[in-house]
Amino acid sequence: MTLAAPRSDTHPEAPMTEPYLLTPGPLTTSLRTKQAMLKDWGSWDIAFNEMTASVCADITRIVCGEETHVCVPLQGSGTFAVEAALGTLVPRDSKVLVPSNGAYCQRIARILSYLGREAVVLEHAEHEPLNAQRIEQALRADARITHVAVVHCETSAGILNPLAQIAATTRDAGRRLIVDAMSSFAALPIDLRTLDTDAVIAASGKCIEGVPGMGFVIAKRSALDSAEGRCHSLAMDLHDQWAYMQKTGQWRYTPPTHVVAALRAAIDQFHEDGGQPARLARYTTNCKTLIEGMTALGFLPFLDPMHQAPIIVTFHAPADPAYTYKELYERVRAKGFILYPGKLTRLETFRVGCIGAIGHETISAAVIAVAEAVREMGVVELAPRSSVTNQ
Amino acid sequence: MTLAAPRSDTHPEAPMTEPYLLTPGPLTTSLRTKQAMLKDWGSWDIAFNEMTASVCADITRIVCGEETHVCVPLQGSGTFAVEAALGTLVPRDSKVLVPSNGAYCQRIARILSYLGREAVVLEHAEHEPLNAQRIEQALRADARITHVAVVHCETSAGILNPLAQIAATTRDAGRRLIVDAMSSFAALPIDLRTLDTDAVIAASGKCIEGVPGMGFVIAKRSALDSAEGRCHSLAMDLHDQWAYMQKTGQWRYTPPTHVVAALRAAIDQFHEDGGQPARLARYTTNCKTLIEGMTALGFLPFLDPMHQAPIIVTFHAPADPAYTYKELYERVRAKGFILYPGKLTRLETFRVGCIGAIGHETISAAVIAVAEAVREMGVVELAPRSSVTNQ
Repeated sequence: MTLAAPRSDTHPEAPMTEPYLLTPGPLTTSLRTKQAMLKDWGSWDIAFNEMTASVCADITRIVCGEETHVCVPLQGSGTFAVEAALGTLVPRDSKVLVPSNGAYCQRIARILSYLGREAVVLEHAEHEPLNAQRIEQALRADARITHVAVVHCETSAGILNPLAQIAATTRDAGRRLIVDAMSSFAALPIDLRTLDTDAVIAASGKCIEGVPGMGFVIAKRSALDSAEGRCHSLAMDLHDQWAYMQKTGQWRYTPPTHVVAALRAAIDQFHEDGGQPARLARYTTNCKTLIEGMTALGFLPFLDPMHQAPIIVTFHAPADPAYTYKELYERVRAKGFILYPGKLTRLETFRVGCIGAIGHETISAAVIAVAEAVREMGVVELAPRSSVTNQ
Repeated sequence: MTLAAPRSDTHPEAPMTEPYLLTPGPLTTSLRTKQAMLKDWGSWDIAFNEMTASVCADITRIVCGEETHVCVPLQGSGTFAVEAALGTLVPRDSKVLVPSNGAYCQRIARILSYLGREAVVLEHAEHEPLNAQRIEQALRADARITHVAVVHCETSAGILNPLAQIAATTRDAGRRLIVDAMSSFAALPIDLRTLDTDAVIAASGKCIEGVPGMGFVIAKRSALDSAEGRCHSLAMDLHDQWAYMQKTGQWRYTPPTHVVAALRAAIDQFHEDGGQPARLARYTTNCKTLIEGMTALGFLPFLDPMHQAPIIVTFHAPADPAYTYKELYERVRAKGFILYPGKLTRLETFRVGCIGAIGHETISAAVIAVAEAVREMGVVELAPRSSVTNQ
């Protein structure tokens, strides 16, 4: 059994090896994307303004939103963009339904609590997709609910939620939809010509394969137009950011210029590679390779395959007393791959990402590294501690 | 008269030329700083956590705050960090005095208005430094004022405000001080052993010469300790960010990993170059070279030299009808240098930055480029339209 050597950075002055990030963002980006950061840009210069405009136009087109939506970029992490969308687009006297099957849904509820917006959390189990029928019942039961805020791919377990169904249910009930598409944008299909939503939110360092440092909100123009003066925060005020950008072509406050340049390069490669269908195909192959390889070793995936998004896979921790996540992580890291801890509330698990500028050969090499690591650790029993899985 | 050729990027796949940024951030960074971004980092990995901790420790030490203060980094631009400091450290029933001589002071007032904190703006002329005596009078006249929020170097005109005096006045009046040191940190001396302040705020892409994408608040530990649950925003909640980082070593939400790596490299170079005194000396020489060169051409600086910070210099627009800023900008840009527009309310001006990874030879070359540009434009009279300067 041979191991893939950690990738060596090709830059002459940076000879250190660099592990692959099998994590849900930041993730492994291409060298070309990183090389786009070897230049300094003036943030008020026309060349930079044009780059920002082209990035925003391309992002909107990726979800077919050019007729109805605009892309408003925001400095910071994806969570900043989620808060900005909620604070700007949801009126202060609104009531928001938050169907929840993981930590990112819970984070939306926490943000709403900070903002003083009334929220109702509709709990689901961590292994079950959000249920459109339950959402419909909840909307029918409470006429005061004005909005539904939903996570498309909940990376806590790696589950894919049925966005089209939830959007139709929300629209039919006459409510408005906010979509956290952080780890689905650019990989899973989202078509704003048929999906009725006030906002789709994502970030530079996820499936579009840029580096982290900015989020963006693809906002329905009509919702944004009516949002002036509503936001709780100057920094998070998407209406103000958008209005200023319309007027000047510039970001309101210093943009992360190098991150924007890397995103431009990443979007170019996204298009050259074949766009969203090609990205989904590559990630799907990565995911299949991962699950087949790990299952062959004896690991058990947490989710029913029909609910698994091809983004990140949760595996049960092995029953063997010789297993600890910390040691697995360190041994696999030394072999060139960074794993991700589990995030489930009751079960001990770990996660492996399928996304980033990597193909199935890298995933196969990672599976070999895991096999080597557990052998070195003396872990024999790879099945979970409890035979009770959640399905 | 020969011109400096625009710098050519040394990377083989990025042969395009790149102008020097004579702007107050983003600014020209060293190649080594940019090359630090050629690696992807796992945001939960111990190596990245250690890098964050070392960056924060070094930032605190630069202002001698290690006994009393902690550095809390924040994703986003410097303005995000200013809002986070005000929203986290200033209690909701506080009243804040904002002495103002420019746009960044006004921005503090605007943030306070978003946050619903009562504020009193103490207006000064754009060419005069903030006046500690007037601040003292304002504090004596209103016992309800609890805080003073001040900008150290107001880059609207490029003025240096008397921070030590203002801090002493504020302390003697029993009030608390918040310092926006965005364009002074790492260049001008700030010593928290003698300067009593609840927060010093700056960002990665200013005089520390990193790339833009994160801010930081050097917060007095006692002020931060009492701030739990106060902030208006989850993303901006410095107490929550700090508490999480204390517990886990990680940022709460996805950090701009490449920006942090660039900042680590920039701080290394800052130390190797001789720290704050050496940086101040280089910028002072840059500033002197700029003012002497431009004055020799016939341009008139806006500020009295005794109030000029060695950060960015405002020049009066020439009287000659052949002059437009747009044409000057474009011609000088074509010669390899990016200028900055003026930001004064009444007078037509333009600005030239002295900061970034550049020396006086670059500044001399920029002055030559300006000379060539005005000659090509047929601008003969470089003195201002009005002989009335503000001094």
